Amino acid sequence: MKPWFGSPGVTSGLMLRILQCLFASASIATMAFSTGFSTATSFCFLISAMGLQVLWSFGLACLDIHALRVKKDLQTPILLSLVVVGDWVTALLALAAASSSAGVMVLYARDADICKLDPKLSCHLFQISIAFAFFAWFLVVISSHTILWLLASLS
Amino acid sequence: MKPWFGSPGVTSGLMLRILQCLFASASIATMAFSTGFSTATSFCFLISAMGLQVLWSFGLACLDIHALRVKKDLQTPILLSLVVVGDWVTALLALAAASSSAGVMVLYARDADICKLDPKLSCHLFQISIAFAFFAWFLVVISSHTILWLLASLS
Repeated sequence: MKPWFGSPGVTSGLMLRILQCLFASASIATMAFSTGFSTATSFCFLISAMGLQVLWSFGLACLDIHALRVKKDLQTPILLSLVVVGDWVTALLALAAASSSAGVMVLYARDADICKLDPKLSCHLFQISIAFAFFAWFLVVISSHTILWLLASLS
Repeated sequence: MKPWFGSPGVTSGLMLRILQCLFASASIATMAFSTGFSTATSFCFLISAMGLQVLWSFGLACLDIHALRVKKDLQTPILLSLVVVGDWVTALLALAAASSSAGVMVLYARDADICKLDPKLSCHLFQISIAFAFFAWFLVVISSHTILWLLASLS
């Protein structure tokens, strides 16, 4: 089986998973250290979605490391189907959480000027956290599209 | 070429496009008739994203009607690639717009109780419009996945 960029059991796939983990963790950390994130449900949803993303990407990164060490081929249709479904679920949740938080952020910073009215809110940290979440989502989209394409070419 | 469910030039594909158009138009109409939608940028973004969705789905519905009338096969790799890229762009925008509006809606209805404090806002209409947008997005996802699968099986 020719190794596809970003597919399971390949070095590029492992790198993508590690980057997803890092960006999602950075998003959680930035949001958790900000003041007043609990004022909006969307920010809490972002933390939950990124938490799920960290767990999923970390699990797959461990699987990739194991496969690379024992030189095991992970590109079977059943495993690829499971990974692609999981990737789709986490990617959808990540985009929904990042977008809803971005919607609230625009309301806070522009529409209602809440950031100026309440200087205690860490608006800059909210923005950084949302940006990290969008990066994590983009990397999951790359992984899932590669695997979906590989799966379709196998069937 | 065996007709795939939901692919271009097939009756099921045409039905999907018409439903996408209807739900996206309903979302725009509900939001446009509500009072105070301009208080949040996300609601204006929802109208724009659904407007793009209507244009895209209406164009493809016309193409499907033409193909069905003259019995033309639309399932060529170049046309399918163009449709799948367009579907992805509109689906991403639709999900981002619906999610950001949902985030603002939760803030209005629960976190900040703005719906109770300002009874002039048509909060129920906002919610109905967002629900329509999610339906439209879901139908585009079905179309795009079907076409991506068909494209991968052709290549």
